[in-house]
This record gives sequence, C-alpha cells and structure tokens, in this order.
Amino acid sequence: MKLPASTEWLLHCAATLAQLEPGASASAAQLARYYDLPAPYLAKQLQDLVKSGVLTATTGPRGGFRLARPPSEITLLRIVEAVDGTSPPYECREIRQQGRGALRPEECQSTCVLAQKMTEAHDAWRHSLAGVSLADIIATLPPTAPARTRSRLGGS
Amino acid sequence: MKLPASTEWLLHCAATLAQLEPGASASAAQLARYYDLPAPYLAKQLQDLVKSGVLTATTGPRGGFRLARPPSEITLLRIVEAVDGTSPPYECREIRQQGRGALRPEECQSTCVLAQKMTEAHDAWRHSLAGVSLADIIATLPPTAPARTRSRLGGS
Repeated sequence: MKLPASTEWLLHCAATLAQLEPGASASAAQLARYYDLPAPYLAKQLQDLVKSGVLTATTGPRGGFRLARPPSEITLLRIVEAVDGTSPPYECREIRQQGRGALRPEECQSTCVLAQKMTEAHDAWRHSLAGVSLADIIATLPPTAPARTRSRLGGS
Repeated sequence: MKLPASTEWLLHCAATLAQLEPGASASAAQLARYYDLPAPYLAKQLQDLVKSGVLTATTGPRGGFRLARPPSEITLLRIVEAVDGTSPPYECREIRQQGRGALRPEECQSTCVLAQKMTEAHDAWRHSLAGVSLADIIATLPPTAPARTRSRLGGS
C-alpha cells in the first residue's frame, strides 16, 4: 500500500501556493526549480490538481497555477485524492461466494463484515486528512516563511 | 494506494481457521478449495502469516495451519500487516531540503508538518484495524456458521 512519490510534491506545492499573495500564481517551472523536481512530470500532476478543483490554471505570459479556493477550504484529503484517486485500498472480490465454502447469494445481501471493517479503517484515514486544511499547515510555519517562499519562488 | 488481492484471501482464511475446534488445523489445499484460490500462492501467503506469528504450521499427515493465539488476540491489523508489510503509504523524501527553496538542516530538526499529518492519518487507519479481532468478526456470524465451515472445509 503505497502512495506515489508525487504525493509529497503536490502537498508541498499546494502549501507553497497557499503562501502567495491573493491572486498571484506560480508556473510549473518555478515550482519545479523551487523543489528541484522534474518540470514536465510536475506540470502534468499540477494539471491533475486543476481537474480536481484544487488549483486553477491561469494563462498568459505571467500565467501559472494558483489555489482554486481559500487555503482554509483545501484539505490534505483533497490533494492526496487528486494525486492518487479516490478508490479505497482494500478491494472485496466476494471470495465468500466462491469455492466449496460459497455462501448463497441470499446470505450475501449485506456487505461482508471484513470489507466493512476495512472500509471503516479507510474512513478513519480519510477523516483524519479531511480535518487538516492548507491554512492549518501554513499556521504552523514561522511568520517569516511566506515572504521567503515568495522571494525564492520568484523569477522566471 | 492498493492492498494486494491476497489481503482478502488471508483475512477470510484466518476467520475460517478461527471457526475450527481448538487445536484443529486446515491445510493450504483445504483452504484453497474452500475459497477456490490458487493453492501454491495461497500456501506461500499462509507461510508469511506463520512468520508474522498469526498462524502456526503443524506438520505430519494431518498437518496444516491453525491460529497461533486465541481469536480475541488476533486483530485485523496484524493480518493485514502480515500480508502487506508495515511500511506506511506516505514516504517523506525531504523535498523541503532541496531546490531553490531548500530549508537549512537546522530548520528541519522537526519532522515536516505534512509528513506528520500523513502519519497521523495512517495511525488512525491502524488504530481502527487494531480495534477489531477475529473474535469480533466471528461474533457477527450466524450461530450455525462454524459447524458449516468445519463441515465444508473437511476432507482431503
């Protein structure tokens, strides 16, 4: 059970965009340089966050990416699921209905109790990440962090 | 973020073994027939559960596998981690320390707050699965289930 390495990239990029002045944006090239990441692959991933409604892409010579909503309304869950998708890690293939021990269909009208418990665990994971917004993350940074972030991100 | 398909197999096999008479065991071939699973691959996975202390392998003509401890002491977490390992899904590669935005080492003596939050979510998932034992699962089955399970599992 592994999240893609780009999960770290996009969490950090979103936290970086949350430190920009309102309305400002950063390009994929700027973000790639900021974290020393492969720009083409990062650009593709940033587009996935646009599709998921986490980021907005702006066009033009000073175009780039900015948050699609206030940092307080973007949770870590939204970012992680934008990168990795929303399908749960445990897949129930109903093996209880196959083989010599197969239950009859009428005995399987409720979800398998093992699948239920795996879903409850995934719900606990989602609930934990849904309780943390980018605003919460920024609030933990030193007060000088946003100005430094903007300064180092700047330039073309 | 996916668990292997064999996670379902082993959760069900462990729940099946939890329904045997005390001291009784079942072979990989019996369990494979019970759920129509590929016996050689299942046997390998059952051995992984032996290594993790969930099952005990018994030898001899009536040998096989049985639970290594009472069902109340075997949690779903132990089984899932025996199948998939214990490494957390999110890996922090410290990208905060690389690129143009790199923080200095002395600024990174605490774990990155994003990694902390991802760890908290994984802890919530683990806590949920650690709260459910095989005894809890068996308690949800109809009272007639264990006798039927033993009858259908039997035979060589």
